[in-house]
Amino acid sequence: MIESRSDAYVGELKEFVALKSVSAQAVTRPLVRETAEWIKNWILQNLPGSKCELRDIDFKQKDSDGTELELPPLVVAHLNEHDPSKKTLLVYAHYDVQPANKLDGWDTDPWELTLMPNKELRGRGSTDDKGPLLGWLLMAKAYADLKMELPINIRFISEGMEESGSIGFDETVAKMKDEKSFFENVDFACISDNYWLGDKKPCVTHGLRGVTSCYVSIQGPAVDLHSGSNGGMVYEPMDDLIAILASLKDSSNKILIPEILKEVAEVTEEEQKRYEPIDFDVSQRKRDMGVSMIRDENDKAKSLMNVWRFPCLSIHGIEGAYSEPGFKTVIPRKVIGKFSIRTVPHMTQEHTEGVIEKYVKEVFDQRKSPNKCTIEFSSGRWWYVDPVSPIFEAARKATETVHNVMPDYTREGGSIPITLTLSQAANCDICLLPMGRGNDGAHSQNEKLDLSNFISGIKVFSHFCQELATM
Amino acid sequence: MIESRSDAYVGELKEFVALKSVSAQAVTRPLVRETAEWIKNWILQNLPGSKCELRDIDFKQKDSDGTELELPPLVVAHLNEHDPSKKTLLVYAHYDVQPANKLDGWDTDPWELTLMPNKELRGRGSTDDKGPLLGWLLMAKAYADLKMELPINIRFISEGMEESGSIGFDETVAKMKDEKSFFENVDFACISDNYWLGDKKPCVTHGLRGVTSCYVSIQGPAVDLHSGSNGGMVYEPMDDLIAILASLKDSSNKILIPEILKEVAEVTEEEQKRYEPIDFDVSQRKRDMGVSMIRDENDKAKSLMNVWRFPCLSIHGIEGAYSEPGFKTVIPRKVIGKFSIRTVPHMTQEHTEGVIEKYVKEVFDQRKSPNKCTIEFSSGRWWYVDPVSPIFEAARKATETVHNVMPDYTREGGSIPITLTLSQAANCDICLLPMGRGNDGAHSQNEKLDLSNFISGIKVFSHFCQELATM
Repeated sequence: MIESRSDAYVGELKEFVALKSVSAQAVTRPLVRETAEWIKNWILQNLPGSKCELRDIDFKQKDSDGTELELPPLVVAHLNEHDPSKKTLLVYAHYDVQPANKLDGWDTDPWELTLMPNKELRGRGSTDDKGPLLGWLLMAKAYADLKMELPINIRFISEGMEESGSIGFDETVAKMKDEKSFFENVDFACISDNYWLGDKKPCVTHGLRGVTSCYVSIQGPAVDLHSGSNGGMVYEPMDDLIAILASLKDSSNKILIPEILKEVAEVTEEEQKRYEPIDFDVSQRKRDMGVSMIRDENDKAKSLMNVWRFPCLSIHGIEGAYSEPGFKTVIPRKVIGKFSIRTVPHMTQEHTEGVIEKYVKEVFDQRKSPNKCTIEFSSGRWWYVDPVSPIFEAARKATETVHNVMPDYTREGGSIPITLTLSQAANCDICLLPMGRGNDGAHSQNEKLDLSNFISGIKVFSHFCQELATM
Repeated sequence: MIESRSDAYVGELKEFVALKSVSAQAVTRPLVRETAEWIKNWILQNLPGSKCELRDIDFKQKDSDGTELELPPLVVAHLNEHDPSKKTLLVYAHYDVQPANKLDGWDTDPWELTLMPNKELRGRGSTDDKGPLLGWLLMAKAYADLKMELPINIRFISEGMEESGSIGFDETVAKMKDEKSFFENVDFACISDNYWLGDKKPCVTHGLRGVTSCYVSIQGPAVDLHSGSNGGMVYEPMDDLIAILASLKDSSNKILIPEILKEVAEVTEEEQKRYEPIDFDVSQRKRDMGVSMIRDENDKAKSLMNVWRFPCLSIHGIEGAYSEPGFKTVIPRKVIGKFSIRTVPHMTQEHTEGVIEKYVKEVFDQRKSPNKCTIEFSSGRWWYVDPVSPIFEAARKATETVHNVMPDYTREGGSIPITLTLSQAANCDICLLPMGRGNDGAHSQNEKLDLSNFISGIKVFSHFCQELATM
């Protein structure tokens, strides 16, 4: 039935994509709110027994001039009438999108979903995240149209600020949790806001790295100094900072901070095996990044582990030094180096921050500099689950049923903080179940979702619910 | 006579300071031109036999929006009637000043020269460079008032863009040199635009460091990358750059570039001795810079040599990396490190740039990075003369006559490019003969010129001319 309704489904997505829910700019925030209204009406009209409300964000966002900015609400729904004998799944997707303008290099109007000859559905938000969001709703509607009951209770939460830092999401979820209604008795949670690793093989995602951001500040002279009149005499803060930054890793990318790897889980044989079937096209990835070489590119597992399951350190920049084009012969009085370490199981915030601070201080102390060195941190935790729990079993079986292939078990190198927020709020297992492909171009020009992914994604969601009911 | 006219001289300086010749802003450029007119009229009215013209700058300065900005003219003068039997001195000073606003923290109106109870003449431009400029003119007027002939021919050149990069000065001087009038048959040149080293002892300045500015560019991925999704996989341009920058010097400030010091002149015994009498207050200098410690602070000669006669390397900043407050987990695609080496006798541009480039490339090559490393330079030459030529003899004798003390022979760590421009244009020996003190606060709030320095400076200029006549 889902296949037979393909045209109607594309029509619904076309209507959804046409709503310009760009959260980045204050001026388009009213359109984001309208989109929330559209979803609410869609749910109430199409899903018998459903409940839906728009929940305002418990947070004030201020513009640089102090004006309070409108924040689009959460859409909070029960997609079907609650049946206490059934399992309950919490689904998350977001309804806001990245900005888009035909003049940025789109071949079609980004706000008019277009079915291309190669069966790509092209349009802003098609894959990120309107296609997956609507996929869940259409799946529920399919049951209703067939006069069938959904095999599980589905609670649905959708935000309109995901593309702009999920401002106020955590605060609002915390408040809702205190109210004990929406997040009670949830058995599983699922986020559909990521992608297959490549463009051929479906996947289920079971890990994200965390991040520890470090600010190393070196304070020297009371004022910026002229490097001609003073250079040679002064202990320059930049010298201390550059020496510290250079001491953090070697040219093979090994982090040189002692003990930093102590808490990192060993790669087990089982884990190593899990990389073998993974479909990873190194050449494609290099083309996407525009690089000629990646680390360990002849060893697929190693190469993926470098981004998924080993910590890595990146230096992002320096605040306070001269950063404009041209030249300024300045000795900056105070400079702040910014670097981050992506964290993995089972690194703890305490240990990680502790060994970084100790090492940075040691490197600095060895220089016998009269300057002042301070370090600050901000950390977000990694997320990892072994993909063997019931929810991953359900995701695997559903994917196999639809795609006739075992999904890849992938991890991601970045962080999706809402994953931890939701798994803690609902106190349940969570999995990331993507609909689109790695080459969909989320955030880019000509964003697309393949029609086949849209339709098969809806089918996977349906089988997923059926499998969950049996867990 | 000069002492007896002190009040009148202060009055003239007061009128000069009141002219807000701030060259930094386009909006005040007309006032800078008016100031040039004021000088021209002053010369023609007060100095019999003088000639003076305003010479437009042979250069177009464009605003960021393409508008052509007005450039104030050079004031070009013969202060007395040319006598071919006399020696000829070329004098340089500038008539523009730094911006100033009472609200910036001035205790008095910066545009109203105020004689403070401690006999400081406080006001913007009092010491930089209106006091010295007017000092030369008042000295010539003193001869005229006494119906005496100046013992030498004095040619005078003054610019109104010194505080804003001397835009067009070199081009205009080159054109004037081609015209063969003003710069012909000049025997000596003198610049009065620097300061005593401290606040007690006069000095004559005979050296300036040059500068070689280096831009090291590392180009990696085609686009900026997210450090979560890609960190660990990518050869990050920042890593290469930080490693290169960190390899340039050690914590004792020694430059690690092989052969860079090869051309640096040995410190001779004679030179070493010259540092002994120099009046240098380390504590004051530390207070001025707001630092707790300077390099080699217990060895006066070494400490001064570090800024005056040894090369030094400063790292100024990085373009392309994240430099704003806050945090951005970015892997920048292209970063440009900016550093400079202050050069000294007898470092050549060719050798210096050559060894830097060779070393940077070697450090980069050792990293086996797939990124692309390029380096660019821009160099300005050092200036140094042994302070034993006739012009320095004249400066020494004049200073001794007025101050009863042998002047310190100082050098400066920065560059004053006009020094080389003028010494080459006039093809003669040049010396820097300052009027003000090291604590005058040029460019700062409450800029001042001590009344005693103003008056004794005029006397020094007079004796200097008399001494030059005998050389």
